[in-house]
Amino acid sequence: MNIRHSSRAVMMMALVWASGLTAQPIQLEKLEKKTILLFSPHPDDDTFCCAGTLALLAKRANNIHIFIYTNDDKGSYDPEMTSERLGRIRKAEEEEACRIVGIPKENIHWLQFHDGMLEYASPRDLVEQVTKIIRAYRPDVVLSIDPGSEYVRWHKTDHRMSANNTMDAIRAAEWHLYFPNQRLHDGLAPWKVPMEALFYVTPKDANYWVNVDDVFDVKLAASLAHVSQWEPAIRKYRVDWDPKELDALKQKLKARAPKKDGHFVEAFRIRGRFNQP
Amino acid sequence: MNIRHSSRAVMMMALVWASGLTAQPIQLEKLEKKTILLFSPHPDDDTFCCAGTLALLAKRANNIHIFIYTNDDKGSYDPEMTSERLGRIRKAEEEEACRIVGIPKENIHWLQFHDGMLEYASPRDLVEQVTKIIRAYRPDVVLSIDPGSEYVRWHKTDHRMSANNTMDAIRAAEWHLYFPNQRLHDGLAPWKVPMEALFYVTPKDANYWVNVDDVFDVKLAASLAHVSQWEPAIRKYRVDWDPKELDALKQKLKARAPKKDGHFVEAFRIRGRFNQP
Amino acid sequence: MNIRHSSRAVMMMALVWASGLTAQPIQLEKLEKKTILLFSPHPDDDTFCCAGTLALLAKRANNIHIFIYTNDDKGSYDPEMTSERLGRIRKAEEEEACRIVGIPKENIHWLQFHDGMLEYASPRDLVEQVTKIIRAYRPDVVLSIDPGSEYVRWHKTDHRMSANNTMDAIRAAEWHLYFPNQRLHDGLAPWKVPMEALFYVTPKDANYWVNVDDVFDVKLAASLAHVSQWEPAIRKYRVDWDPKELDALKQKLKARAPKKDGHFVEAFRIRGRFNQP
Amino acid sequence: MNIRHSSRAVMMMALVWASGLTAQPIQLEKLEKKTILLFSPHPDDDTFCCAGTLALLAKRANNIHIFIYTNDDKGSYDPEMTSERLGRIRKAEEEEACRIVGIPKENIHWLQFHDGMLEYASPRDLVEQVTKIIRAYRPDVVLSIDPGSEYVRWHKTDHRMSANNTMDAIRAAEWHLYFPNQRLHDGLAPWKVPMEALFYVTPKDANYWVNVDDVFDVKLAASLAHVSQWEPAIRKYRVDWDPKELDALKQKLKARAPKKDGHFVEAFRIRGRFNQP
Amino acid sequence: MNIRHSSRAVMMMALVWASGLTAQPIQLEKLEKKTILLFSPHPDDDTFCCAGTLALLAKRANNIHIFIYTNDDKGSYDPEMTSERLGRIRKAEEEEACRIVGIPKENIHWLQFHDGMLEYASPRDLVEQVTKIIRAYRPDVVLSIDPGSEYVRWHKTDHRMSANNTMDAIRAAEWHLYFPNQRLHDGLAPWKVPMEALFYVTPKDANYWVNVDDVFDVKLAASLAHVSQWEPAIRKYRVDWDPKELDALKQKLKARAPKKDGHFVEAFRIRGRFNQP
Amino acid sequence: MNIRHSSRAVMMMALVWASGLTAQPIQLEKLEKKTILLFSPHPDDDTFCCAGTLALLAKRANNIHIFIYTNDDKGSYDPEMTSERLGRIRKAEEEEACRIVGIPKENIHWLQFHDGMLEYASPRDLVEQVTKIIRAYRPDVVLSIDPGSEYVRWHKTDHRMSANNTMDAIRAAEWHLYFPNQRLHDGLAPWKVPMEALFYVTPKDANYWVNVDDVFDVKLAASLAHVSQWEPAIRKYRVDWDPKELDALKQKLKARAPKKDGHFVEAFRIRGRFNQP
Repeated sequence: MNIRHSSRAVMMMALVWASGLTAQPIQLEKLEKKTILLFSPHPDDDTFCCAGTLALLAKRANNIHIFIYTNDDKGSYDPEMTSERLGRIRKAEEEEACRIVGIPKENIHWLQFHDGMLEYASPRDLVEQVTKIIRAYRPDVVLSIDPGSEYVRWHKTDHRMSANNTMDAIRAAEWHLYFPNQRLHDGLAPWKVPMEALFYVTPKDANYWVNVDDVFDVKLAASLAHVSQWEPAIRKYRVDWDPKELDALKQKLKARAPKKDGHFVEAFRIRGRFNQP
Repeated sequence: MNIRHSSRAVMMMALVWASGLTAQPIQLEKLEKKTILLFSPHPDDDTFCCAGTLALLAKRANNIHIFIYTNDDKGSYDPEMTSERLGRIRKAEEEEACRIVGIPKENIHWLQFHDGMLEYASPRDLVEQVTKIIRAYRPDVVLSIDPGSEYVRWHKTDHRMSANNTMDAIRAAEWHLYFPNQRLHDGLAPWKVPMEALFYVTPKDANYWVNVDDVFDVKLAASLAHVSQWEPAIRKYRVDWDPKELDALKQKLKARAPKKDGHFVEAFRIRGRFNQP
Repeated sequence: MNIRHSSRAVMMMALVWASGLTAQPIQLEKLEKKTILLFSPHPDDDTFCCAGTLALLAKRANNIHIFIYTNDDKGSYDPEMTSERLGRIRKAEEEEACRIVGIPKENIHWLQFHDGMLEYASPRDLVEQVTKIIRAYRPDVVLSIDPGSEYVRWHKTDHRMSANNTMDAIRAAEWHLYFPNQRLHDGLAPWKVPMEALFYVTPKDANYWVNVDDVFDVKLAASLAHVSQWEPAIRKYRVDWDPKELDALKQKLKARAPKKDGHFVEAFRIRGRFNQP
Repeated sequence: MNIRHSSRAVMMMALVWASGLTAQPIQLEKLEKKTILLFSPHPDDDTFCCAGTLALLAKRANNIHIFIYTNDDKGSYDPEMTSERLGRIRKAEEEEACRIVGIPKENIHWLQFHDGMLEYASPRDLVEQVTKIIRAYRPDVVLSIDPGSEYVRWHKTDHRMSANNTMDAIRAAEWHLYFPNQRLHDGLAPWKVPMEALFYVTPKDANYWVNVDDVFDVKLAASLAHVSQWEPAIRKYRVDWDPKELDALKQKLKARAPKKDGHFVEAFRIRGRFNQP
Repeated sequence: MNIRHSSRAVMMMALVWASGLTAQPIQLEKLEKKTILLFSPHPDDDTFCCAGTLALLAKRANNIHIFIYTNDDKGSYDPEMTSERLGRIRKAEEEEACRIVGIPKENIHWLQFHDGMLEYASPRDLVEQVTKIIRAYRPDVVLSIDPGSEYVRWHKTDHRMSANNTMDAIRAAEWHLYFPNQRLHDGLAPWKVPMEALFYVTPKDANYWVNVDDVFDVKLAASLAHVSQWEPAIRKYRVDWDPKELDALKQKLKARAPKKDGHFVEAFRIRGRFNQP
Repeated sequence: MNIRHSSRAVMMMALVWASGLTAQPIQLEKLEKKTILLFSPHPDDDTFCCAGTLALLAKRANNIHIFIYTNDDKGSYDPEMTSERLGRIRKAEEEEACRIVGIPKENIHWLQFHDGMLEYASPRDLVEQVTKIIRAYRPDVVLSIDPGSEYVRWHKTDHRMSANNTMDAIRAAEWHLYFPNQRLHDGLAPWKVPMEALFYVTPKDANYWVNVDDVFDVKLAASLAHVSQWEPAIRKYRVDWDPKELDALKQKLKARAPKKDGHFVEAFRIRGRFNQP
């Protein structure tokens, strides 16, 4: 007899009852021909945290879509910069970073909030919007910012709303009675995301590390495609790098890149079958 | 000389000054003929976390009232289910669970929010509403979800708002200048809740455990009265259990039930005299 | 070659990459002739946490400004008290406490929210307002409530909004494209706060302690200037102390005052160059 | 054959199609033993507009309930006045005015908003609240502020929200699928208000006039029971009138009282079977 | 010399200066092969007001798209009805009505709000959403509810928000600096709607009448396709009509249908070049 | 005996009682050495409606302050235009227009909202902000947009919020119990605005006309100082006019300028002693 017990009731009781359940995560970087969605607050968080993993996944014919909450049109010290122009620059940089990683620009989707303003969006509308995306794409994996393993982690504008909202949408997407007009008008069935891989994890929360040795240079190149996020272009915009400065920065970043057991890694917290905690 | 110093000033200073104060909690399960309020986000959180304790308290002639923020009308995988019907089912299940525990259905109060939508309620209105409840009932104990001993814990829809809101209302209820129309128009005096017992605690935050050995079967029965929260009814609703499935699930749950020192327990974090931290 | 790399990109990568960067905080209490802003949720949090440090800084010709989010017009058990009167009392007490510490009352600025209502303010407007203050004063140091080193810490009304909002405003103040009308209409340039000293820290988050032995009596006097926050005035308002009661309380507080290595201290978490985490 | 066609479809089409339908209003002041609800933004609008009609209705054993949105705690020029005290004064004055008219104080219900703040209430919550009242009392007549016969009339704080909200709640109360938790949890059936009598009408919108000759003195006395709304008490509060001043004011008001065809009248716009326009 | 002066400045001055400008509206019903958008609060307002005009336009190869703000899932007296089911019924009825008129169901777009809840949507988000639709379709004509020629007309839930929002979106769509992310991320250029035809006009505001003699039966059939909006199905749902009842209702409606100069007409207020008033 | 009766009670009763009161407006354009505040939604509404009146008032040594709600940074068809740049242009144009009229640029105050976004501001905060301005300046006259003599007139973004908000703030400013922290913390006394002159009136609402024959050229020059609001600069920005185009436009505007009894006029609705209607 093989009774599957309700994830919800078991999940809630697992919070207070002794639990023998342990997640048996699939090996993230070995996935093939799957649909993978990544939700990022800004066009660079995806690159800085996941470019290596994405590059590995792109090579294995996965269908990767990047959803970016904000257009990142505020973060420049250049006094001549305007938001309109910075938005264009950041879009181009994201497209270039994705190209390096192996993701076509058609797969980049912008939720069109302004930088720093995501916190002030209507939270109900935002959950509904992302729930629709999840039900439409029916992803095998969602990558998103870790809201914290047990506590609400973020007090950084955009990151907090992004982290919580993606989680709430994953939860809502599972039940057809949430936002039922999506079934009625769009023909979208509910969808339970089988795997969540959360980035921006603290060291104590990480439970999964992807070895990115083979794609480390790709990751570095993608990170540095966000030219306007780095000195000197963040102070006085220029479209490209001085080769010497670029080289120096590469060395510096390489020296500081996170390692585990002698390998370059990207850290995640994998959430398996249970949404909570 | 017996000077009681202001709880507020001492409380705040206690955060930064060395404190010799320790809570001396009353023994929760030994209370008799007291007024006890429990605030629950959904009609099952109370049962899953506290049914044993409630059963013990009900036996001792305590006046227990359950306030449930939402009607839980979303959480079913059954494609034929409607929110209207699920709301009715969940109400009946809660009434049955409470009956098993020993609480009459007249003592169940619904705040009438829809499942998953509590986060989007007006927080000010919600605090005012629960403050009025507290001032009207003047409870000796409030049971509620733990918002976290030091950090904001929840990123689960409804749980977070419920945890924070009950706490904020407890705080507001104490001071007559909060929501003064309740004194003016309803004749309600301020009320300082003497004891807060918080459930859904993490293991490291728990500081009190109720031995529920004597009522463990009651607890199990009450938990299973929430038929629609479990397999198979969560996928294809049926009003009752297949006896064999029920028996198997009971064994499974009993095996996993939280124990301490060889006894079945329910864990709490007791907050005594000080609201904070 | 002396390349400064973008704080933002490095900051974000530092969350996921191994970081060799360590804050080298300036010695807070040794500052002279600097501009120092303190943001406090209520008119007493500044005193209870920082009066000693402020007294030391005031002696060294620093230009200290206190910004208080709420007027604290709710927290009295006195049934005859009104909010209007309590607001006046609390204002006078704050002015007296600041006078004792060495800060003129012209340097106290009220953001004019009512006690307990800061959570319900428009968060976007509140960030804009405090961003303008920071850009106008261009402080060398900001003192504010610690929102938590890694997690969102507060579930106390006013404290949470105050902690997060000041942090968000510090972040926004740095980038001219946030709230650009402040540059256009007020001629305000962006400002990057060089040092943040956060109070109401938990013991495990504190990383800096100011020795306040020399000003401990000043701190005690300032704390007790908030007469209406203490017994017996919090229950039945009186404008001054019974000398005996005052003396007893002083002894009690002195006995409990936080110490480190045998000295009276005030604890902080210093955040240096990086906004995050 | 007696087919009643849907009020809704006919109503909407009546806006664009030529309509032969005319309201056949019941004679308002002749009602007996009916349930009558009046919704007023402040505790005086009911008196100033409807005291005569209410007095006539009270004599005929109607069950009249007054619901007052705000507590009117702002409108005094007396510099010594506090909101707390003004709220108490206004409550007592309303009770006295109702007593004069013949309505017991148990039938006065306060929705507990502060004066001038109704516009900032959550409109969804407010509609839900008043919908519940209507479903619970099942009134034969609702008296409320006229939102305008065709256009939205009000730009006065509180009056606008009150006018629109009562109308929206009347509409929602009729359909059981609005706020279905009221049926589920409170056992409240939907209710279609058979008659709406709207006050504060413009002369061109009025379509019904109640002759109040017989109760004009009652109306005058009730109006003047709101002592604090008039000179001199509005500038320097006193609990009662100088008899000479009172007499002069009575003469003045009597001279200006609205008349029609030689009789003292109160004007209304009766809306009959159709909610709209 | 042929100087076109700014519509905006002239428009604003036209409000206060004597104006010689008069709208020269295109003949609405003679349009061919144009793109026409209709915005309707519920799935029946379009039919009741415009079915004749739409039928004429559909015959002339216009590309007509219907955007419906809400799903109309509340308006039934049938006690057995659920919102889920009513939403399905209303969707099918709208599709049938459009089919009769000559509009394929692919051209019906649902904005997915629940009935009666549009007022509580985020107004900023709603304008942004409809602005995007206008920029994407670049319509030659927009049909929408008349917000009033000079005053804000509506105090009916959903109608008001719908009327104002469509107007605000038309205005915003014209200027590329509103919601600039639509240009940046979606490649959408601004679009100035050349003609607005507003329905639900009052008789005094109407300035254009479409003769619908030739399609009156089509209009009647389309109106009656909304079975659940009429007696008896509004009280006890049935999917079709009793032929006798249907015939009686048809006669009744025909007798009341709006006429002008002996012809069946649909009335509009045409707004031409100027957005305002 | 000289009894002044409460404006409020009389005002409210005047709505339903026959009123013999008539406004006796001061002659607006004859005022001298008064404080005059004008509230404008955008930096051009003041000029287009009131430049002549302002020029007359400026000559008579009145202290005129212009408060502009938004920065008007959206309304350009120029595809190269950015919001940042347009904001700067509009600010400079307003300063130039005011200079021509005789108002120094120090007297222009920007409330710093973005164009088209005023509707989405927190209405409570906005009223509080303008109430503070009124209490601080204690104006003899306020000029603002007419919200409608009886009905709410505006459905144009920014104009509606601006019209209603200024009116609400005038009302709130009068009563010290509104926003009492302004008295407590800023020492601001309540202020009753003696005269309101409302512009953007409809012809039927106007009740006062200022003869601007003597300053008509000033008005024309000021209007044309808003270069970017007119063709051709609204399509392709240029800082100045082609002299020939300018001349042609002047002729055209002069021909259309509003006249009464053969004189150039500016129309207003004067509200005298009573706030309502």
